[in-house]
Amino acid sequence: MNKVVKINKDDMDVTVQPGITYDELNEALKDTGLFFPMDPGPGACIGGMVGTSCSGTHAVRYGTMKENVLNLKVVLPDGTLVKTANRAKKSSAGYDLTHLFVGSEGTLGIVSEITLRLKIRPQKTAVSVTTFPSNHHAAQTVIETMKSGVQIGRAELLDEVMIKAVNQNSDLELKEAPTLFFEFSGTDKQVDEQIAIVKDIVNNNKGQGFKFAVDVDERERLWTARKIALWSAPILKPESDVWITDVCVPISKLADCIQETKDDLDKSFLLAPMVSHAGDGNFHLFILFNSKDKKESDEAKRINTRLVERAIKMEGTCTGEHGVGVGKRAYLEKELGPGAIKLMRTIKKAVDPHNLFNPGKIIPDEQGHNKEADKEVEKESQSKPK
Amino acid sequence: MNKVVKINKDDMDVTVQPGITYDELNEALKDTGLFFPMDPGPGACIGGMVGTSCSGTHAVRYGTMKENVLNLKVVLPDGTLVKTANRAKKSSAGYDLTHLFVGSEGTLGIVSEITLRLKIRPQKTAVSVTTFPSNHHAAQTVIETMKSGVQIGRAELLDEVMIKAVNQNSDLELKEAPTLFFEFSGTDKQVDEQIAIVKDIVNNNKGQGFKFAVDVDERERLWTARKIALWSAPILKPESDVWITDVCVPISKLADCIQETKDDLDKSFLLAPMVSHAGDGNFHLFILFNSKDKKESDEAKRINTRLVERAIKMEGTCTGEHGVGVGKRAYLEKELGPGAIKLMRTIKKAVDPHNLFNPGKIIPDEQGHNKEADKEVEKESQSKPK
Ligand SMILES: Cc1cc2nc3c(=O)[nH]c(=O)nc-3n(C[C@H](O)[C@H](O)[C@H](O)COP(=O)(O)OP(=O)(O)OC[C@H]3O[C@@H](n4cnc5c(N)ncnc54)[C@H](O)[C@@H]3O)c2cc1C
Ligand SMILES: Cc1cc2nc3c(=O)[nH]c(=O)nc-3n(C[C@H](O)[C@H](O)[C@H](O)COP(=O)(O)OP(=O)(O)OC[C@H]3O[C@@H](n4cnc5c(N)ncnc54)[C@H](O)[C@@H]3O)c2cc1C
Repeated sequence: MNKVVKINKDDMDVTVQPGITYDELNEALKDTGLFFPMDPGPGACIGGMVGTSCSGTHAVRYGTMKENVLNLKVVLPDGTLVKTANRAKKSSAGYDLTHLFVGSEGTLGIVSEITLRLKIRPQKTAVSVTTFPSNHHAAQTVIETMKSGVQIGRAELLDEVMIKAVNQNSDLELKEAPTLFFEFSGTDKQVDEQIAIVKDIVNNNKGQGFKFAVDVDERERLWTARKIALWSAPILKPESDVWITDVCVPISKLADCIQETKDDLDKSFLLAPMVSHAGDGNFHLFILFNSKDKKESDEAKRINTRLVERAIKMEGTCTGEHGVGVGKRAYLEKELGPGAIKLMRTIKKAVDPHNLFNPGKIIPDEQGHNKEADKEVEKESQSKPK
Repeated sequence: MNKVVKINKDDMDVTVQPGITYDELNEALKDTGLFFPMDPGPGACIGGMVGTSCSGTHAVRYGTMKENVLNLKVVLPDGTLVKTANRAKKSSAGYDLTHLFVGSEGTLGIVSEITLRLKIRPQKTAVSVTTFPSNHHAAQTVIETMKSGVQIGRAELLDEVMIKAVNQNSDLELKEAPTLFFEFSGTDKQVDEQIAIVKDIVNNNKGQGFKFAVDVDERERLWTARKIALWSAPILKPESDVWITDVCVPISKLADCIQETKDDLDKSFLLAPMVSHAGDGNFHLFILFNSKDKKESDEAKRINTRLVERAIKMEGTCTGEHGVGVGKRAYLEKELGPGAIKLMRTIKKAVDPHNLFNPGKIIPDEQGHNKEADKEVEKESQSKPK
């Protein structure tokens, strides 16, 4: 189940089986001038990416799985085979069954085939890196850049703690301050114009040491810190477990949400470096803790709970891209209210009346089927990065 | 119920009540630098636009309602109030309830509040108009333009019959040939670059008389034919009724679908000018007929049925943007297969067990509640333009 079924170059779409990874897919597309931009964790498969409605660093430009799945073939719990849509670029033909399954974490059906929208590989790409006196200055730069009409490819923010981890894990010797990474793409002229516009915005927001690169090697070098951040974080507390949080807030609230979170962390005995898909208002703390130490586990849990409550109060979500699983079920009602949970439960019961598919994921049902799953909550929230 | 509830400039979103029209919304946004790009029929309200999952001429650049609704407040048939999502730009928090309602044509709930994504008003806009020796040449131009990476704002195609109607309804004296209208937008430099690239593509595809304009008045003038097409069509058969079809196919099939349709029309005694949102593979025939003449009504119906079957065979849909209503229910199973219809029925029954909301729309149920609605089929299909 990891084959490319058909590439339609002129339609800029591709049909694949669920077991193919996004890297394998992009390898298969390499001579077409097209690519599939979603880039979640390494090794993720398209089926799983549909399951979680993932996104990644490119979402600010290309959207998430929600915007990039054209249709699905799905097997329902009763064995019914469903084709959710045709291959036209748009359709008003009845209920949007495609989106019913994207993000449903395998609770409603097993996806057996996926047609994805593809994007044009940009002629030219450039990268810039800048440090800022505060996360507020960095977030404001992102907002202004987006409102300038510049086509940002990526907008990623690392906090000073994450930069410290990166420094310890490399010979980069970066300034330990909030650091913003932009990627721009388009034609030669577009990219040059974008860099000029963004440079001004950066300067107006007290950005320092604006560096940019268009040459491949230099681009890679500038992007290194962002790339190695994920696995550098634990260096700050060797042998530690990592709890990765996933809140997402309206971008106008991003700076406040990050700042209040950092103020909260300042009072904690745990360290938690941060990386943010800033263009989407999404950020991840990497809470470093020892899961065998009750005091540390409890503290990690408290940090996470306060963070989620803060994000929800700011009209945000407990999960921007990782999904609910069992670990975040408790927050859903707070976020969306009882009506939404009731409706999700109605849908689950109608489509899977015997609760066969991933019971206990996303919405706990009322019959106690979830006892087993509940026991897993602790394990999952504490050891897996989603 | 036609108020703007809140504009969030930095987040580029707006919350509105369902009764506001898209023109009223854009009027309210006029000093913000932002706008809402969906442009279906004149006078359409956001609630109805959610209902049909509409789009219009801007979809090729900005997507449809599906991509532009951030969240909804909805009242279910049992009175439950549902908030479908928060206001973060992305979320993986459970089932995608927003998309459950977009395009559900009022059959699952009454939408009482809508939060929409907004777009940046482009610095500069340009328009180009070109005629082509065939619809194939025009469609190929659209495909190549999209694959060039040029950011098209609109890509609209009128056939020679529609141009004839426009000529009769104006003093434009246009060449009666397939005619492609592009809109480009962005910064000054971007627009200039786009025009240069597209001019080459147009020339390579035998386009003739490429005209373009950046000046407002001149732009308006060039766009006139596209603008007046909708109400010019009937001039070719005064006093006629108009049946507007709405198929959408993968763009690689657009030229074939149009050509086969025109070959079919050549054998008919009815006239049917065409306009196409070519960048999306969506086109509308305006079948001109007298609904009181049985021979003409039957012929219009046959043209439409053959067109829909042709589109479905080409992996397309019977409705790209107008919705199913009662007139297109018969085609849904052919398009999506029995599994999808069964699943739609399962959802409808679960959410609206007493079949209270728009009974008979989209999916006929099994209890015969639709007898009344069935009688409406003829009326709706023949006299309303959706
Ligand atoms: C280091 C690291 C970095 C990450 N960064 C990101 C990031 O930037 N953005 C992001 O979005 N995520 C990120 N993630 C999370 C992860 O990569 C995504 O959630 C990804 O979508 C999971 O893919 P998978 O193949 O591992 O799916 P799995 O974990 O195997 O499955 C995910 C869900 O989908 C369901 N599922 C799987 N296959 C099917 C199928 N065929 N039919 C129906 N349901 C199915 C499963 O039951 C499960 O509920 C990161 C993870 C790691 C470890
Ligand atoms: C000349 C002309 C040109 C057109 N061009 C286009 C085009 O280019 N693109 C396009 O997409 N469409 C086009 N249309 C079709 C039409 O404009 C769209 O379908 C539009 O979305 C309808 O809006 P409305 O306010 O008239 O909705 P209505 O027709 O009143 O309602 C549409 C559906 O939504 C439901 N609904 C309405 N309000 C609510 C609510 N509050 N809660 C739940 N359900 C609700 C209704 O029950 C109905 O099923 C065109 C129509 C005309 C006449």
